[in-house]
Amino acid sequence: MAEPRIIRKKTGNFLEDFFPGQRFRHKGGKTLTEGLFTTFTEFSMTTNPLAKNAHYARGYGYRDLVCPPGLVMLVAFSQTVEDVSENARANLEYIDMRFGAPVYVGDSLEVETKVVGVRPSSSRPNLGIVHVQSTARKHNGEDDEAVVATWQRKVQVYKDDDSAEVQAGEVEPDEIECELWLPHHRAGFDYKGLAHLSNADTYWEDFEPNTRIEHSRGRTMTSEHIALTAILDNTSQVHCNQFMIDLDPKQYVGGELIIFGGIPFTLCLGLSCPDVADNALGDLIYTTGRHTAPLFAGDTVFAATEILGKRELPGRPDLGVIETRLHGHKFTRAEGEKHDDAPEGWKKVPIFELDRQVVVKRRSHYA
Amino acid sequence: MAEPRIIRKKTGNFLEDFFPGQRFRHKGGKTLTEGLFTTFTEFSMTTNPLAKNAHYARGYGYRDLVCPPGLVMLVAFSQTVEDVSENARANLEYIDMRFGAPVYVGDSLEVETKVVGVRPSSSRPNLGIVHVQSTARKHNGEDDEAVVATWQRKVQVYKDDDSAEVQAGEVEPDEIECELWLPHHRAGFDYKGLAHLSNADTYWEDFEPNTRIEHSRGRTMTSEHIALTAILDNTSQVHCNQFMIDLDPKQYVGGELIIFGGIPFTLCLGLSCPDVADNALGDLIYTTGRHTAPLFAGDTVFAATEILGKRELPGRPDLGVIETRLHGHKFTRAEGEKHDDAPEGWKKVPIFELDRQVVVKRRSHYA
Amino acid sequence: MAEPRIIRKKTGNFLEDFFPGQRFRHKGGKTLTEGLFTTFTEFSMTTNPLAKNAHYARGYGYRDLVCPPGLVMLVAFSQTVEDVSENARANLEYIDMRFGAPVYVGDSLEVETKVVGVRPSSSRPNLGIVHVQSTARKHNGEDDEAVVATWQRKVQVYKDDDSAEVQAGEVEPDEIECELWLPHHRAGFDYKGLAHLSNADTYWEDFEPNTRIEHSRGRTMTSEHIALTAILDNTSQVHCNQFMIDLDPKQYVGGELIIFGGIPFTLCLGLSCPDVADNALGDLIYTTGRHTAPLFAGDTVFAATEILGKRELPGRPDLGVIETRLHGHKFTRAEGEKHDDAPEGWKKVPIFELDRQVVVKRRSHYA
Repeated sequence: MAEPRIIRKKTGNFLEDFFPGQRFRHKGGKTLTEGLFTTFTEFSMTTNPLAKNAHYARGYGYRDLVCPPGLVMLVAFSQTVEDVSENARANLEYIDMRFGAPVYVGDSLEVETKVVGVRPSSSRPNLGIVHVQSTARKHNGEDDEAVVATWQRKVQVYKDDDSAEVQAGEVEPDEIECELWLPHHRAGFDYKGLAHLSNADTYWEDFEPNTRIEHSRGRTMTSEHIALTAILDNTSQVHCNQFMIDLDPKQYVGGELIIFGGIPFTLCLGLSCPDVADNALGDLIYTTGRHTAPLFAGDTVFAATEILGKRELPGRPDLGVIETRLHGHKFTRAEGEKHDDAPEGWKKVPIFELDRQVVVKRRSHYA
Repeated sequence: MAEPRIIRKKTGNFLEDFFPGQRFRHKGGKTLTEGLFTTFTEFSMTTNPLAKNAHYARGYGYRDLVCPPGLVMLVAFSQTVEDVSENARANLEYIDMRFGAPVYVGDSLEVETKVVGVRPSSSRPNLGIVHVQSTARKHNGEDDEAVVATWQRKVQVYKDDDSAEVQAGEVEPDEIECELWLPHHRAGFDYKGLAHLSNADTYWEDFEPNTRIEHSRGRTMTSEHIALTAILDNTSQVHCNQFMIDLDPKQYVGGELIIFGGIPFTLCLGLSCPDVADNALGDLIYTTGRHTAPLFAGDTVFAATEILGKRELPGRPDLGVIETRLHGHKFTRAEGEKHDDAPEGWKKVPIFELDRQVVVKRRSHYA
Repeated sequence: MAEPRIIRKKTGNFLEDFFPGQRFRHKGGKTLTEGLFTTFTEFSMTTNPLAKNAHYARGYGYRDLVCPPGLVMLVAFSQTVEDVSENARANLEYIDMRFGAPVYVGDSLEVETKVVGVRPSSSRPNLGIVHVQSTARKHNGEDDEAVVATWQRKVQVYKDDDSAEVQAGEVEPDEIECELWLPHHRAGFDYKGLAHLSNADTYWEDFEPNTRIEHSRGRTMTSEHIALTAILDNTSQVHCNQFMIDLDPKQYVGGELIIFGGIPFTLCLGLSCPDVADNALGDLIYTTGRHTAPLFAGDTVFAATEILGKRELPGRPDLGVIETRLHGHKFTRAEGEKHDDAPEGWKKVPIFELDRQVVVKRRSHYA
């Protein structure tokens, strides 16, 4: 028999493969099992009882435990990785991320993406920026194809062939109807009977603009991030292939496996939850967000939240919106140095920020 | 805009915050998902088919897979950590821990605690002992608010302000009705057809007082304990915040992240299961128990069980009770030393003990 | 009171405990929870939407998400470990592994084994080979006792007492009816509407004999393997008891905890999935397979598939069979050496191979 033909399939797209107006219907799709729900809800250290206590969630008019926004984002986002960012150098920005229908265990999410911009780098011939708009819908037999989330992101993508022509340009993003579903306030229901289950000092009335809350808890990451990333179907090899790193460590950020950005994203949301979102009914929009430094196994993640503003929610006197900026940070050794915002010998390193509007219950109606 | 106001919220209570008769309705609550059930049931290495094989559990008259007592305890106990022991130095003793209604996947547990005693330390001005009684109830729409477990514990708690006055004193614990639910013995049912699924030599008839069973298996702990503890909503930072430890290692036991005591508690129950509880229908009571040494990532946990006594269970000729003492231990390096109960160069370190009464099937009725 | 009697129970069987024709009905049984399903499906990096997207699986005529063959094998195989291979030195060969009824979340698997051969080693007095045939059935209240998998394996087992007599001999294996269940092709159904969810280039028409596909992704294993193995009820101590290894490292392969062979088995299936089985409806048979080198925490696993042949599936013009050989490998440091199939300074080490026949959809009927 002849020597076998060897096949090595290309995975993911490179800069020259994208063009404005291009559409992807992503492969796979993902049913939110109880295993996935538990793994990530608990990992994130979220404290909102909507995601932890079905008795509470049903009292509030949800069908069951509610998938927290960080997990909706992680599952939906990861579906786009192979087509959009398997060959990316970095995720530059999250834009206009909005949430719609609630996601429950058993729902199956499927995601589509439209390319709205492609731009080669002016200084680096092997790189460019792809700007995409993605939308996740759920299938559950009832409210078929309800939109659960939509967002844009800009991602820095490698070229496969430095000399290939780039199809640069821009198109308008689609108008996606995606408004946060909120349960009705039921006049006769005994919400007070559930009020002890959430923090007493995080109602809409409690927030004051121009405050910064330093959240008290930290969480050390371990090599668990490899499994967490695989659970999400994120196929990028920089998170799970140590051999690839060992072959040429200088080629990779930090010379080691880098933690998938979705992990600090959801962890910062969770660390901030007891002080910011324990009485939230949902996240309205993340207008913009970005990762500002890489995270590695062994790092401990901390978070803080700035309260930027607050406003009424039209038609809902029982609720209000708070406008926040979520910050994530870690500390790295800095022997002999002194920094005002870190213990001696350490340096504070911002890793993440997210402009986030949260829909919060009013004490007047719920406690 | 002015510099923002900085807020750092206090989490948990300190010694001076407690008073006898004080009551907490703990936040959160916790629905037992299949993810949580699997993670801990399997982690613990339990072998009782009630927790592994729904076909067997239903045959015995349970509605579904049964949550093992170690997991009921872990979930219920963890709900009390923020209010009772987030600022604790050590958990001193478990007392009168009893189990009631069976817990199934889908049940939501909520927990209340009464402070029954507060006592400042006579020798250490920054510490004292808080004695509490906690009770966990479940919501599932059917047997609403059934008690699933009740227990007392004594915990050594730090003061926030050494000069603060302590509200010392004692009150009587409540009388809590909490009796182990047991399925009826059905005269015509083919229990023998299920008998091959559990160990053949662990029926009530097989146990003899004054024996000590050295369980054969060991289990090495890894940094997985960080995630396992977060899954349980245990918010104590000594289990998950490496940066806090790094800042002042001498302040912390062993100078590293300490494993949450509930982990060896449930693991020792599991390691003992094939020899002690493979034919148990439930744990009746843990009269007393305590941790005797800390556990760290890298340690291997072993267990042994003393059979202290056995007795009939009134009204149930098909069952009996065995009275046991469960011991957990690990080995630490002890170069050049010789210990009778350890291989040369190693020392045996007791880490846990629990006085435990187990309800066990009789061979006469089930095999 | 007298000194207690000390009991150390023997676990598992040794070579002298087996005899041809012997039958085991294994203890425990195992309900496939959503937690277990998620943990392993995602760990394995499988990409076939039947295991990820219930909307897709139901469209294809399955009742729900379908347990991938690697997980069926892991759960069923692990049930046999205590009786068959707790005291094994190595698993030598998998033979004639066939799959039957689909396995869904909620199914409870129970396994029986027949010993078909026992042979002492001619050169090593403390070892011998046990050849067994095992069959897994499921209980779910409907298609009661349907066979889900059957297989043979040869395992090298230690003697407990070197001088004990071995009951050598052979008997015929049982005839086990076990044919892969396949959903009907429904003439009017819109399969094309689901076609974007799986890879477009892995239909039966796409495979050519005498090709070798080098799968692009790798996955680094961590100490997570300890927990993964416990989840499966695999009780062998060489996977989870570091203290036992530390006492006499030279006694154990590599002087460290060895990863359970079922882990690379299922991981290699997953790594190959996007290129080989994304459009599979099931695995027909693994005629033979074996582990060729041990795997340890820190190793990165890669896979390749040879396409050996393809054939029609009688009565199913919509499907076809591909005959493959799945290879797993890792790389180890080899400073100063040059190998044609590895980067300089590294050596390629084959760890696993499996002759595998897969039932694959035809593009003509499904896309």
